[in-house]
Amino acid sequence: MKAAVWHGKKDIRIEEVNEKPLQDSEVKVKVAWTGICGSDLHEYEEGPVFVPDQEKDPLTNEIAPLTMGHEFAGIVEEVGQNVTKFKPGDRVAINPTLTYGNKPEDIDAYDGFSFIGLHGDGGFTKFAHAPEGNTYLLPESLTLQDGALIEPTAVAVQAVKEAGLQFGDTVAIFGAGPIGLLTAIAAKAAGASKIVVLDLSQTRLEKAKELGATHVINSSEKDPVEAIKEIAPNGVDVSFEVAGVAPTFKQSIESTKPRGTMVIVSIFAREIEWNPIQLTNTGVKITSSIAYTPTTFQQTVDLMATGQLKPQGIITDQIELDNIVEQGFEALTADKSQAKILVELSGEK
Amino acid sequence: MKAAVWHGKKDIRIEEVNEKPLQDSEVKVKVAWTGICGSDLHEYEEGPVFVPDQEKDPLTNEIAPLTMGHEFAGIVEEVGQNVTKFKPGDRVAINPTLTYGNKPEDIDAYDGFSFIGLHGDGGFTKFAHAPEGNTYLLPESLTLQDGALIEPTAVAVQAVKEAGLQFGDTVAIFGAGPIGLLTAIAAKAAGASKIVVLDLSQTRLEKAKELGATHVINSSEKDPVEAIKEIAPNGVDVSFEVAGVAPTFKQSIESTKPRGTMVIVSIFAREIEWNPIQLTNTGVKITSSIAYTPTTFQQTVDLMATGQLKPQGIITDQIELDNIVEQGFEALTADKSQAKILVELSGEK
Repeated sequence: MKAAVWHGKKDIRIEEVNEKPLQDSEVKVKVAWTGICGSDLHEYEEGPVFVPDQEKDPLTNEIAPLTMGHEFAGIVEEVGQNVTKFKPGDRVAINPTLTYGNKPEDIDAYDGFSFIGLHGDGGFTKFAHAPEGNTYLLPESLTLQDGALIEPTAVAVQAVKEAGLQFGDTVAIFGAGPIGLLTAIAAKAAGASKIVVLDLSQTRLEKAKELGATHVINSSEKDPVEAIKEIAPNGVDVSFEVAGVAPTFKQSIESTKPRGTMVIVSIFAREIEWNPIQLTNTGVKITSSIAYTPTTFQQTVDLMATGQLKPQGIITDQIELDNIVEQGFEALTADKSQAKILVELSGEK
Repeated sequence: MKAAVWHGKKDIRIEEVNEKPLQDSEVKVKVAWTGICGSDLHEYEEGPVFVPDQEKDPLTNEIAPLTMGHEFAGIVEEVGQNVTKFKPGDRVAINPTLTYGNKPEDIDAYDGFSFIGLHGDGGFTKFAHAPEGNTYLLPESLTLQDGALIEPTAVAVQAVKEAGLQFGDTVAIFGAGPIGLLTAIAAKAAGASKIVVLDLSQTRLEKAKELGATHVINSSEKDPVEAIKEIAPNGVDVSFEVAGVAPTFKQSIESTKPRGTMVIVSIFAREIEWNPIQLTNTGVKITSSIAYTPTTFQQTVDLMATGQLKPQGIITDQIELDNIVEQGFEALTADKSQAKILVELSGEK
């Protein structure tokens, strides 16, 4: 079967791969749609970041070249002999996060984690395998395309939960990429009263406004902290750092109210120069989120099923697997109007 | 009357000062004992840090030269005409923190604050004035010398409260100066089961052990994170950063358990190079404390009155005002065996 396989930086190839034997505890999914994630883009542009290329990943036991893709949904094709909860024909979404499972779920990932589609073969192909425990039944109200949005949406739901956001709170979100946009959507669904989204791209800010931001600020045009304090004079209750650079890290703290919470959602690629006295002076608390717990993944399914969470607006393109490099990775790099691009894998709708 | 007056860096003079008129809302205190604080030392060594030398402080309306000293207790000598809660002869301790009072006490200081004895005349003299609201009655079980310890002890109590420390928790404290030692004492009183104190000075670590640390680690001899994980394999529940430098900042996070709390108690003098991904990888949350609320100050009085908090062991010397530079500031700089030095002001016991 055809797959998008990571061989190295700037070297993702569409090529034939052999299907592996299905393990007893695994579900084989005929993939309908798989989203391209920012992590995929990092692997393409500057990888390997997560992809194991020197030795096998301890959780997947796999090594590059690997089939990428970790945001996917499809139809169960076959189940391993120990699988009891799924049967062929079930519509499912995959939680790609693998952990050691030795700790309660809220701290499990801090022992180490791997992703189906980054640390092992994933969903940019026709058939993918996932452990039964990583498989979630899609409610009837959700399409297979919705299913491919659950994973990135769960990242945003986890971040909002981590913030301890209360009904009516004011929120600032630094960065309007896909996760920033989904955080705005999740904050709205959680009852935030003012949602300020900041970015340097006017195109992205327009998207944010369309998806529920009550205010947008172009940080290249205005001082972001002053602009936020015009909207929330004492600072916002909660801020989300979804850009991952020093200026937004500091602005995020500075625009939060005393004793408010700043959540780091982004993955910082390098060190910053910063004086921790900024926390002493502002009273702001910092926390972070990474991926999501299984509980949060299921809550995301449920919130999408009732329509409380509507992430569909972040989809900006749907493409074929053969075009994934040019119309996917390259388009996401070059075109700020792109947010979430979905790849069609098997024609299942 | 004689006073220790800050004129500039390395220029604290013992000289005659005139007593100012007592305001209607003020209490005049015949000072018994005043402690030398790390902040006083900073003003002496590298000031002005807090001392206003260019324009009058907005809260005290005073400017250098100023009488220093903000950790003091004594006997009420006289009260202003609007003072109702105190009378001459009352034994009192002073909370030197002045705020604008426009916000609830937990966020009041983030609007700005000043200290009696740093931003305005303080307690290194025979008679000092303080607003009635900053004056606390000493319970019978506390001596006037105990009274001079309330202020630094309240800093530690606030830090432990900020940590959300639970009965039985494990704790690491980076830095065994006076506030680090008091944090160990406060953590013990709050029910911490393991209290690991780290420093580069063996002398200070011996003091920490004497005052209640269950474990001490010399960070110049062992890897501090590894050494802590031998004691608390998953990391401590709570860590306190009381050293204020980049290595201890990072070690403090690294030695805390996933989803545990790191409290910044120190004042960072300069920027550090740091990657916020350390929080994403560890799940540790950062918060900070600054001074204490009035509620915490009263709780500190109460906890000392019952003997639950016994900070007296941090006193390493008692000196006369005339000798404050040599036996006080210079001794604290040169001699790591010094922790808290008290200055006797009026002979009241």
